[in-house]
Amino acid sequence: MSSGNPFLNTERRPHVDGLFDAHEVALSNRNPGIPLEALRHDVSPIGLHYLLTHFDVPYVPEDDWQVEIAGRVRTAQALSIADIKALPARTLTVTLECAGNGRANMRPRYPSVPWAYEAVGTAAWTGTPLRHVLNGAGLFDDAVEISFIGADRGYDRGQEHAYGRSLKRRDALSEDVLLAWAMNGQPLPPQHGFPLRLIVPGWYGMASVKWLKRIEALATPYDGFQQVSSYMYRTAPDAPSTPVTHMRVKSLLIPPGLGDFYSRHRMVEGGPIPLFGRAWSGAGVGITRVELGIDGAWQEARLGPEQGKFAWRAWSSTWNAERGEHVLSCRATDASGDTQPLTARWDVGGFGNNAAQQVHVHVR
Amino acid sequence: MSSGNPFLNTERRPHVDGLFDAHEVALSNRNPGIPLEALRHDVSPIGLHYLLTHFDVPYVPEDDWQVEIAGRVRTAQALSIADIKALPARTLTVTLECAGNGRANMRPRYPSVPWAYEAVGTAAWTGTPLRHVLNGAGLFDDAVEISFIGADRGYDRGQEHAYGRSLKRRDALSEDVLLAWAMNGQPLPPQHGFPLRLIVPGWYGMASVKWLKRIEALATPYDGFQQVSSYMYRTAPDAPSTPVTHMRVKSLLIPPGLGDFYSRHRMVEGGPIPLFGRAWSGAGVGITRVELGIDGAWQEARLGPEQGKFAWRAWSSTWNAERGEHVLSCRATDASGDTQPLTARWDVGGFGNNAAQQVHVHVR
Repeated sequence: MSSGNPFLNTERRPHVDGLFDAHEVALSNRNPGIPLEALRHDVSPIGLHYLLTHFDVPYVPEDDWQVEIAGRVRTAQALSIADIKALPARTLTVTLECAGNGRANMRPRYPSVPWAYEAVGTAAWTGTPLRHVLNGAGLFDDAVEISFIGADRGYDRGQEHAYGRSLKRRDALSEDVLLAWAMNGQPLPPQHGFPLRLIVPGWYGMASVKWLKRIEALATPYDGFQQVSSYMYRTAPDAPSTPVTHMRVKSLLIPPGLGDFYSRHRMVEGGPIPLFGRAWSGAGVGITRVELGIDGAWQEARLGPEQGKFAWRAWSSTWNAERGEHVLSCRATDASGDTQPLTARWDVGGFGNNAAQQVHVHVR
Repeated sequence: MSSGNPFLNTERRPHVDGLFDAHEVALSNRNPGIPLEALRHDVSPIGLHYLLTHFDVPYVPEDDWQVEIAGRVRTAQALSIADIKALPARTLTVTLECAGNGRANMRPRYPSVPWAYEAVGTAAWTGTPLRHVLNGAGLFDDAVEISFIGADRGYDRGQEHAYGRSLKRRDALSEDVLLAWAMNGQPLPPQHGFPLRLIVPGWYGMASVKWLKRIEALATPYDGFQQVSSYMYRTAPDAPSTPVTHMRVKSLLIPPGLGDFYSRHRMVEGGPIPLFGRAWSGAGVGITRVELGIDGAWQEARLGPEQGKFAWRAWSSTWNAERGEHVLSCRATDASGDTQPLTARWDVGGFGNNAAQQVHVHVR
């Protein structure tokens, strides 16, 4: 085996300059973000919601999928999609964001998907609350966590594994955690987890396991790679780590005017320019304020109606554009009092960057 | 205005190394390719088909779209989507590939979307043959070209324009050129041209104008930016240019085994490995042969059934994998006798690269 064998590599060296390698470009193309103009849609149309596929999208042509319910339950069982659809259903409108969103704006930059701002989307997910399945199987009192294993399998930093994550017992029994089989009123598309996935509202997307094959009640905490070795905040490579969980408060604006194809820089005519964007938070307490920044000066934006506890909220404002070069920005505050920072909190793995967006605009 | 103003830049300098700039990464993320494992699907599910959005995806919430039929016709008119749906409809299964697919594998590399292999997809498009609309309006005899203008507008190399392309009269009157309103049996998604787009089977994707607003019959050739200044083959910056038209013969294989998250390199267990892929050509004459390459030795692959004149064809083969590092490849031949080259024909703009794919696999 060659020393450069990626299947043996356990570490990736951070990039310190502003250039990207071919692996990052390929990951960026495989894992699309939402085009920012699509923030206009309350619910992101299929094909515009961001995607992060850790390994390969499983090919599932047949309708014989089963999900195992195993571990610390009275009645281990294998449920078909029909079994799950027979349980009480809910539809929740949920904003999901990748925990690595904003990674490309950190220096140095961890080598992974180089998201700038676009790893976010909102969908209407239909499914049954997970607790119906757990209650049906009979959770033992000693079950402290529930693990969720997908059909997707591969290598990451030298370790072969199926994608898996866990939730603490109390979180898993929430009415809001869904076993979802539909997205925007349609069967799940292959890339969003067909035929069954988990949806964990309020959390970064890594918790919402796709292509769900196995649910296991555990008497000890789950120690899968994606739970304990990835998705951890670290302020330095050897610093103690904290699990990545809920989405930090964040907002985005749709770049106004016309864009340049290559640079995506924006051009507008001087005068009053309507601006529109979205704000969200994983705290589940609502967005209370969005401010529009113009060259560092902040003005209050108008908030649109709420779309429920877990979905982004529209905001709008007007900018009186004057000739020259300008930087637009926005920052949201949620009901817990958290506000977006103006600069990124650096993180080893590039997680949780909720710094205010910057959009460069040329006014003529 | 600063000298770096992208709205005044008329040239972009080619990249000569293997690294990519932040604009290329952003374009790669905005313009997703098909994940190669999705080649399994005869028709690409919505959200897995490649996308190239030159400017912004127009936001079209209302149902009052009209397309103008203008220029050298007896009866200029504005048609609603209902008017167009009242005309005879056809559904065609069509493979579309971006003319810039493979650009990332050229040295030097033109700064644009850095596609490796993934800018391709196949969909079932439903619409009316364009000729019904042209005949209804009454083309004058002096109409030599028909131009198609989309609602998407922006800048490219210093020029503001709406995205537009043209077809010669004879091509435009083909029964196979569609004004399409549905993709895979659903209304067009916003990113694929809702509510109306052109589909030009056999051609690279740039011909299939999205968000179609205006169809104009012209007595002289169309000279829009995307027709005469972009999408031209050039062997050197000052060499004569040739228009990019039909797709060159090409094939792809699904990388076998398990992948490494970051490098996307593949790992398989030794033994017989089934391989599967797709082949297509814009010549409209069918694929007659696909060969599987293993470390430079070629073996005949089996062809699957045809899916019509304009869609990719499945192929499969078996590889007896032996321990070590290997390079898999594939090359297709069409009925006109064209075969894929083993190395890229270099092009200034990075167009038309149909060189055989290479997939690195580690066998343990």
